[in-house]
Amino acid sequence: MDKIYRILKHMEIFRTVKKETLQYIAQKGVVKNLKNDSIIYLDGENINKIYLVLDGKVIISKSSKFGEEKIIYIMEKEKFINEECIDNKSTSTSLKVMKEATLIVLCKEDVLFLMENDFNFNLLIINSMSSKLRRAYRQILNLGLKKINNRIASKIWKLGRDHGYEIEGNVHIDLDLSKSQIASMVGCTRESVSRFLTKIENEGIISQSNQKIRILDMKKLEKYNE
Amino acid sequence: MDKIYRILKHMEIFRTVKKETLQYIAQKGVVKNLKNDSIIYLDGENINKIYLVLDGKVIISKSSKFGEEKIIYIMEKEKFINEECIDNKSTSTSLKVMKEATLIVLCKEDVLFLMENDFNFNLLIINSMSSKLRRAYRQILNLGLKKINNRIASKIWKLGRDHGYEIEGNVHIDLDLSKSQIASMVGCTRESVSRFLTKIENEGIISQSNQKIRILDMKKLEKYNE
Repeated sequence: MDKIYRILKHMEIFRTVKKETLQYIAQKGVVKNLKNDSIIYLDGENINKIYLVLDGKVIISKSSKFGEEKIIYIMEKEKFINEECIDNKSTSTSLKVMKEATLIVLCKEDVLFLMENDFNFNLLIINSMSSKLRRAYRQILNLGLKKINNRIASKIWKLGRDHGYEIEGNVHIDLDLSKSQIASMVGCTRESVSRFLTKIENEGIISQSNQKIRILDMKKLEKYNE
Repeated sequence: MDKIYRILKHMEIFRTVKKETLQYIAQKGVVKNLKNDSIIYLDGENINKIYLVLDGKVIISKSSKFGEEKIIYIMEKEKFINEECIDNKSTSTSLKVMKEATLIVLCKEDVLFLMENDFNFNLLIINSMSSKLRRAYRQILNLGLKKINNRIASKIWKLGRDHGYEIEGNVHIDLDLSKSQIASMVGCTRESVSRFLTKIENEGIISQSNQKIRILDMKKLEKYNE
């Protein structure tokens, strides 16, 4: 418990909350270490749990009744997940592990207790929802208006910004990404992704090997993205 | 002020909040009566206001930098709008009036004061965001996976459910809807909407006149929607 408390205390998001709030989370929260592809919950389940990512990466997605999957977000450290369950409805997305993840699992009741007793913690939950709403609106705009190639370019560019590290001017995306996963993020076919990535590889904008993408020219990629 | 207090007191969403909360809203809120097509705010503005719809209908949309518009939600009575501004960022959508609307405008600071002093009011804000997130996720799934005709069918069906009234087994959608507006909700061209509506009119599923749509067969429409 002391170890978890120390981890929480060093998290940027928690700098304004009460000491007692972090002690409560460390005491009540259950820490889970999860392997790649573990499914944490499925869309429509009655899960009254709220998750906080301590490490690794998880995928929030939604599936059609025919089983097709649309990836909505990739979430990492310091992000809350499933806080929308506070409204007492079932989950509206599925959650699975992309890259070995450590999560703290909290009961909804404990989160409600903290929200009521620490207004700054309450604001963290509100801000987490605001941020998800803003991202969802941008995605709706892109899906509704942009052409498929622009959407793929836009997604690769954002993955570079959010999950990239730079080496000698190139941005390495720190994720193992199959073409199907990119297709599921963009909402298009695997073939469209394959075709477009080959095209921009030939143009010297990216390079690909073993599910890893390196962006060689962020500016040119950004142009496609408009 | 007494009149507003009485209106608020009869609203379903407020049945769990404190009497003082409603008195505070009635005292601090500014009531605005707005005509069709009035623009309340634009995407990217610094508006520290939160709105509550008392009557009428408003459109939440987002625009690309080329000025193309994607309608995200049509909102009506008892809905909060722009509560995501609690995170201190600029607006992430535009808001305009669809059908003469009466809104209460509250400063963000007043909403924060109420959230801190009435936990049930705080939960209303959380529930409002949850509901928007759930709707946004469904929209992302539909935009990402469904074919355009299915998306149009799905949108007409939902408009019937949310804004329809029944006369002799037919569902009249209580909105003046141009083809361009439907296109902007669905994220497709005006021509696609026109073509598909004519098709399902010929199939006896809907009838159209003067921007009004009547659904003659909800079941058949639902089949298109899958």
